[in-house]
Amino acid sequence: MKVGIIGLGLIGSSLALKIGEVYNDIIIYGKDISDSNLSYTIENKIINKKLEEKDYSKLDILFVAIPVDQVLNVLSPILDKVGENTLVVDLGSTKKPICDLLNNNENRRKFLAAHPIAGTEFSGPISADSSLFDNKTIILCETEKTENRLLNMAKDLFLNIGMSIKEMTADEHDKHIAYVSHLSHITSFMLGKTVMDKEKDEETIYDMAGSGFESTVRLGKSSPSMWTPIFNQNKKNIIDALDEYLKNIKNFKHLIETDNLSEMFNEMEQINGIKNILKGIK
Amino acid sequence: MKVGIIGLGLIGSSLALKIGEVYNDIIIYGKDISDSNLSYTIENKIINKKLEEKDYSKLDILFVAIPVDQVLNVLSPILDKVGENTLVVDLGSTKKPICDLLNNNENRRKFLAAHPIAGTEFSGPISADSSLFDNKTIILCETEKTENRLLNMAKDLFLNIGMSIKEMTADEHDKHIAYVSHLSHITSFMLGKTVMDKEKDEETIYDMAGSGFESTVRLGKSSPSMWTPIFNQNKKNIIDALDEYLKNIKNFKHLIETDNLSEMFNEMEQINGIKNILKGIK
Repeated sequence: MKVGIIGLGLIGSSLALKIGEVYNDIIIYGKDISDSNLSYTIENKIINKKLEEKDYSKLDILFVAIPVDQVLNVLSPILDKVGENTLVVDLGSTKKPICDLLNNNENRRKFLAAHPIAGTEFSGPISADSSLFDNKTIILCETEKTENRLLNMAKDLFLNIGMSIKEMTADEHDKHIAYVSHLSHITSFMLGKTVMDKEKDEETIYDMAGSGFESTVRLGKSSPSMWTPIFNQNKKNIIDALDEYLKNIKNFKHLIETDNLSEMFNEMEQINGIKNILKGIK
Repeated sequence: MKVGIIGLGLIGSSLALKIGEVYNDIIIYGKDISDSNLSYTIENKIINKKLEEKDYSKLDILFVAIPVDQVLNVLSPILDKVGENTLVVDLGSTKKPICDLLNNNENRRKFLAAHPIAGTEFSGPISADSSLFDNKTIILCETEKTENRLLNMAKDLFLNIGMSIKEMTADEHDKHIAYVSHLSHITSFMLGKTVMDKEKDEETIYDMAGSGFESTVRLGKSSPSMWTPIFNQNKKNIIDALDEYLKNIKNFKHLIETDNLSEMFNEMEQINGIKNILKGIK
């Protein structure tokens, strides 16, 4: 099998590692806008070869793991260049804009919109981890528009690397992901900002912050180049989620201001139910 | 040495375990409002004996690790009952109300206001962990009001169980801790609420939430009986922190609404600086 990966960041290079582990008789071609990412992945045998445009047509599958703004510019031309039997899979965190863009594309059958629910706050091939996708979910959108044979090849690959598959519309994906992923990135970033603005003396944060703060602010280390276009592309759903969140924070603030201890207690007790829900997260 | 512990929750029982490990020739007396906590800690040899009021006078040190509302009711009577050479140490997460309450107490010299920066989202002696305090900071407030000999005994004990000591006023403690601890509990609880309210179908959270959501919402599992009185006692500082946080969230929402990508990027890039600050957290 010949696999291409455009974008050798955390996702692209972790995927290369895992596919290389699971499959024999495979060649992994890789490409990155950064020369140092490319040479790092070659030197560390994360990929086998540099991907050139002339290779596109002979690939079985081409993954695109780059920021979601850039993917909108490159996918159409890529679909023109790949072979008749090549599947192009986008792995970004928003699905509606890319599905809309390609809706009437003559090569739509060669495209699959996917989102692996996997990642960390770290970036780049230096953070590559072949176990990143183990037991994680990958969401596939609008699969009825992908050619069946190509779709099945991708599904087999995801199952073979240890993922489970869920399908939904791009619309559903973007709405839900605004709440369960994009919102928590914003709340973490803003917690980090609030504490850093206030505590100019970093020693105070060293001394007084515990593991609770560390865990809650962890996503505030995430890459701005990755997240800026995500927040932009999923704007409408994220604004809805932020409005709900702001309403909840203001309401809780009011409970504190008015010494409404019993309501504060009840609210937190209900939220404790998240324990059981989280047990289901792989 | 004879040590008493009132409140055998996560903090009290972890402290008992650690002191029992570090010291020979020690008797640990324990007391809890819950009979099952008490019998659990005796059966599991976390403490040696049930603490009775008649034992108070012979203790070297008596830790009080109960919710911060209850501590206000019990500390004065406890200070009346302990011996002339017994130190009473409160371990709660707010320090100003207790220090104010005891400011003119005739036994003030026998009291030490302390806050170990250690904990998890779990509660009760079943979660006891003898390593909970390893390499953590304990903050001591208004130490000039504690008798020197008793203060030094407590400092020796904290150092012996592997903690480092910082001193500050109760006012400073409560202001800073509102930002670096209390605020992150509220943002976690409210993130949990927002997602649970929206995603009535728990399957969606199972399928779409990743480790990022899990980490950001972790503190939403914390105990309402512990946190309700903390939010109440540190109301003024927490409202200030929430106002800053709300301002930051609203501003970021505005950047998203107005497609101000460069400002979004800059803001996140600055917040990324939290990486270096967090490296300092033990």
